[in-house]
Amino acid sequence: MAAHNPQLGPDGELRHLLSIEGLPRATLMQILDTARSFVSVTEREIKKVPLLRGKSVFNLFFESSTRTRTTFEIAAKRLSADVVNLNIATSSQSKGETLLDTVANLSAMHADMFVVRHASSGAPHLIARHVGPEIHVINAGDGRHAHPTQGLLDVYTIRHYKTDFTDLTVAIVGDLLHSRVARSEIHALTTLGVPEVRVVGPRTLMPPDIEKLGVRVFHDMREGLRGVDVVMMLRLQNERMSGALLPSSQEYFRSYGLTPARLALAKPDAIVMHPGPMNRGVEIDSAVADGPQSVILPQVTFGIAVRMAVMAILAGNG
Amino acid sequence: MAAHNPQLGPDGELRHLLSIEGLPRATLMQILDTARSFVSVTEREIKKVPLLRGKSVFNLFFESSTRTRTTFEIAAKRLSADVVNLNIATSSQSKGETLLDTVANLSAMHADMFVVRHASSGAPHLIARHVGPEIHVINAGDGRHAHPTQGLLDVYTIRHYKTDFTDLTVAIVGDLLHSRVARSEIHALTTLGVPEVRVVGPRTLMPPDIEKLGVRVFHDMREGLRGVDVVMMLRLQNERMSGALLPSSQEYFRSYGLTPARLALAKPDAIVMHPGPMNRGVEIDSAVADGPQSVILPQVTFGIAVRMAVMAILAGNG
Amino acid sequence: MAAHNPQLGPDGELRHLLSIEGLPRATLMQILDTARSFVSVTEREIKKVPLLRGKSVFNLFFESSTRTRTTFEIAAKRLSADVVNLNIATSSQSKGETLLDTVANLSAMHADMFVVRHASSGAPHLIARHVGPEIHVINAGDGRHAHPTQGLLDVYTIRHYKTDFTDLTVAIVGDLLHSRVARSEIHALTTLGVPEVRVVGPRTLMPPDIEKLGVRVFHDMREGLRGVDVVMMLRLQNERMSGALLPSSQEYFRSYGLTPARLALAKPDAIVMHPGPMNRGVEIDSAVADGPQSVILPQVTFGIAVRMAVMAILAGNG
Repeated sequence: MAAHNPQLGPDGELRHLLSIEGLPRATLMQILDTARSFVSVTEREIKKVPLLRGKSVFNLFFESSTRTRTTFEIAAKRLSADVVNLNIATSSQSKGETLLDTVANLSAMHADMFVVRHASSGAPHLIARHVGPEIHVINAGDGRHAHPTQGLLDVYTIRHYKTDFTDLTVAIVGDLLHSRVARSEIHALTTLGVPEVRVVGPRTLMPPDIEKLGVRVFHDMREGLRGVDVVMMLRLQNERMSGALLPSSQEYFRSYGLTPARLALAKPDAIVMHPGPMNRGVEIDSAVADGPQSVILPQVTFGIAVRMAVMAILAGNG
Repeated sequence: MAAHNPQLGPDGELRHLLSIEGLPRATLMQILDTARSFVSVTEREIKKVPLLRGKSVFNLFFESSTRTRTTFEIAAKRLSADVVNLNIATSSQSKGETLLDTVANLSAMHADMFVVRHASSGAPHLIARHVGPEIHVINAGDGRHAHPTQGLLDVYTIRHYKTDFTDLTVAIVGDLLHSRVARSEIHALTTLGVPEVRVVGPRTLMPPDIEKLGVRVFHDMREGLRGVDVVMMLRLQNERMSGALLPSSQEYFRSYGLTPARLALAKPDAIVMHPGPMNRGVEIDSAVADGPQSVILPQVTFGIAVRMAVMAILAGNG
Repeated sequence: MAAHNPQLGPDGELRHLLSIEGLPRATLMQILDTARSFVSVTEREIKKVPLLRGKSVFNLFFESSTRTRTTFEIAAKRLSADVVNLNIATSSQSKGETLLDTVANLSAMHADMFVVRHASSGAPHLIARHVGPEIHVINAGDGRHAHPTQGLLDVYTIRHYKTDFTDLTVAIVGDLLHSRVARSEIHALTTLGVPEVRVVGPRTLMPPDIEKLGVRVFHDMREGLRGVDVVMMLRLQNERMSGALLPSSQEYFRSYGLTPARLALAKPDAIVMHPGPMNRGVEIDSAVADGPQSVILPQVTFGIAVRMAVMAILAGNG
C-alpha cells in the first residue's frame, strides 16, 4: 500500500506532505504529538531549536499568499533552517522555463525542502514525483485540491480542546465546493475516528457527491449546528460573493453566517474555528469571532507548531 | 502620567516606540547611550550580538519603503533576530481582512516585535493598543505624523558632533508641512534642552500653528541659517515640486536650496544633515551634500545603531 | 598592471569580481580550487560554514532575476552571512536618488558585500570605484557586458569533467551578440589555456569583431560541433525569437538547435552545458538536455560552490 502512496517511503515513513488522504492514523498522530513539543518551544524565551540547521528550505509560491508563506517561513526559521522565498509567478516561469526545470534547478542547489503553493491541483504531487530522495515537498495549497497543514492544525486544535476524537460531532460550514481546506479536514477527522462529520451549506456551494467522503449533508444552518462539539467555518472567497452561485454576501450571512443565536444551538462548550482570513459579517459575526468559544487565534499558534512538526519529521526521514 | 502614554509601561519603561512626543528625557538618553554601544558593534569584524536570538521581528509595511525596511532588517539581524518581511499592501488586506485581524494573526504566531510603516497617521498606535504585553511596536513612519527612529538618529548625530545640546541653535529647513520627520525632530531637540530650534521654509509649506511647538519661524533662508550650529534639511517630495504649493523645483532651489554661500552664514563648524533620499539640486547643492560639513552618511550609520538600541531596550522590557 | 585593474588590490589580491577580463590565471585557479572545497560543504548534513558570520551581504538587483538572486542568497546564507535583498527597481531610484547615493547609503550601514545586477553595462564597475576599501562588489550580470560567476562556474564544470584545459576544443553556440555570459566564458577559457574556442551561430547574432577575442567563428552548426569536447549552449532570449534578427524560434531550432544527431558530431564523451533557463525545443532538444552527456544540473550545483568561493575569498581580502 505504501508503495502506491507518493507521500510515504518504503517503510511507511513520511517522505512528503501532499494531502491528508492516504496518511495512516499513526502518521497523523506522530505529527500531532511532535507538534505538541513545538508548542512549548514557541512559548520559550528563545523560540529556536537547531533541528534544521544548515538545511535549505525554499518557499516556492507560484501564487501569492503572504499569510501562508509567513507561517512556513517563521516555522522554518525557528527550526534554524535557511529560508529562501521565491515568488515564481514573476520569475523564470515567465521566461519560458517549465515547472519541472525550475524545480530541477533548485534541487541542484542542494535544496532540502520545497514548500509549494500553486493554483493548479496536483502541482506539488508532480514536483514530489520528480525530486531526488533527499528532498521533501510540502503542499501549502494547490488549487481546490488540498491544504494539508491547515487540516492538521485544525485537528490539533480540536484535540487540544476536546481530547478525544471518538465521541465528537463536527460541523464544517460554508463554501465546501471551492474550499481546499474542507477536503483535508474531512479526511483528517474521519481518519482520527470522529464518528459524525457534518457539512453545512447552500446546494450551490456543495460538491455533488460529497456524501462519499462519509459526511452528513445539511442545507439548513440550524439543523446542521444542533448539538455539535466543533463548528469549523470556511472562508467565503470574495469572487463568490455576488455572481451565479450566491445572490449577495448579505444574503449569505442571513442564511449561513455564524451568529450567537445559531451558535447557541451547538453544545454549550462547542468551539468555533476559522482558517482565516475572516470576512466579518459575511460568514461569521464579530460577536462569535471574538467571543469566548472562538479558538481562531489558537489555531494560528498551533499552525506554527504543526508546520514545525511536519518539517522536523520530514528532515529526519531523509 | 505614564499611565496615559501608550509607549510607557507602569514603571515608565519603554513598551513601544510610537512617537518622540511624550518620551521623557531619561528615555531619550537611555536610547542614545545604548546606541553608542551598538555603534562599536557595527564596526567589529563580526557585527552581531545575540540579544534578540530566537525573537521574531515582523516588518509590517503597509506602504512600500525599501530604504526604511532595510535599516530595520539589518538592525534586527545584527541582533540575531529572525526577521520576516511582510508587504501587506499586496496581501491579506486585499482579501478583506481588517488591520487588527492581520495583527492578531501575526501576534498569535508568537511575534515579539512589529515594525510598522503605514500611510495613515496613528496606525502604529492603534496596533500598539491591541497587542498583548509581550509584543512591542515600533513606528517606522505613519502618514505625516511621526518617524521617531529618524528623529532619534538625528539627535544621536548632533550629540556625536556637538556634545552638549544646551548651547545649540538648530535650523530645520524645507517642507515642514508634509514632513513626518520634522515633528519628531522638534520634540527630540526641545526635550533634550536645545535652546533655539528654528524652522525655515516657504509659507505654503509651513504648518499654521507651528510656533506652538516652541520653534522660531523663518521664511528667509539667509536669516534662518545665520549663526546656527546645525542645519537639518528636509526632503522635498516629488509630488510637491510642481503644483499648487510650489512653482517649480528650480524656483525652490533658488529660494531654499542649501548652497555653499548660504551655509557660510552658519557657524564655521556647523554640520549639515539630511534624512535622505536627497534631491540634489532641489533642496541641497552637491557641493554641500558631499562637502566637509556634511554628516549625512554618518546619520545612516548611527541610524542602524539607534534602531538596534530601540529593539534591544524593548526586548529587555518584555 | 594590478594598479589599472579595479578588481585587484595593490598586492594582486581579489578586491571585487566585476568581469573575468583582466583576472590573472592564478586568481581563476584560486577561485576554482576554493570552490572545490565548498562543493563538499554543500554535500554535508549541515551545509553551513561560519566564514561570513556577522557580515552583511546586500543583493542589489536593479533588474529582477529571481534565479540569480537565489543562487547568491543561498551561497551567502551557507557562509552564515546576513543577507538583505533589495529590489531597487521599485524603490529609492524612483524617488530620484542617484545610483551612487543609494550605494553610499547602504555602505554607511556597514555593508560588507554588494551583489549587483543591473541592466546597464558598467554599473558594477561604477559602484566598485566609489565604495570604501572594506566593501566588495560582485557583478551578477550587467547589461550585455559580463556575468563572471556564470563564466567561472562553467570553467569549474569543464575542469570537473575534463581535468585538463590545455587539450580541449570548446564550442559556444547561439546568440553571441546579446549574451553577457559568452564574453565571460571566452575570457575564462583562453586564460586557462584552452587551445581552441569556437563560436557557432547565425551572422545576425554574432558580434562583428568577435575573432579578436581569439575564437574561431562558425555559421554552420555541424562544422562547429565536429570533434569538440565541450558544447556550451547559450540561451535565446524570448525577445529575439521573432523580429529583425531571426525569422522564428522553429527556424532557429532547425539551424542551431542542439539535437542528438548534431551532438553525435562532437567527441563521444563531449559534455553539454547550458546556463539556463532553457528554452526546450528552441536552442536545445529535450533528448539532449536530459541525456547522458548533459551536465546542465551539475553546473547549477557547482554555481553555488563557485559563488561561495568568490564571497569567501573577497571577505578574506578585506
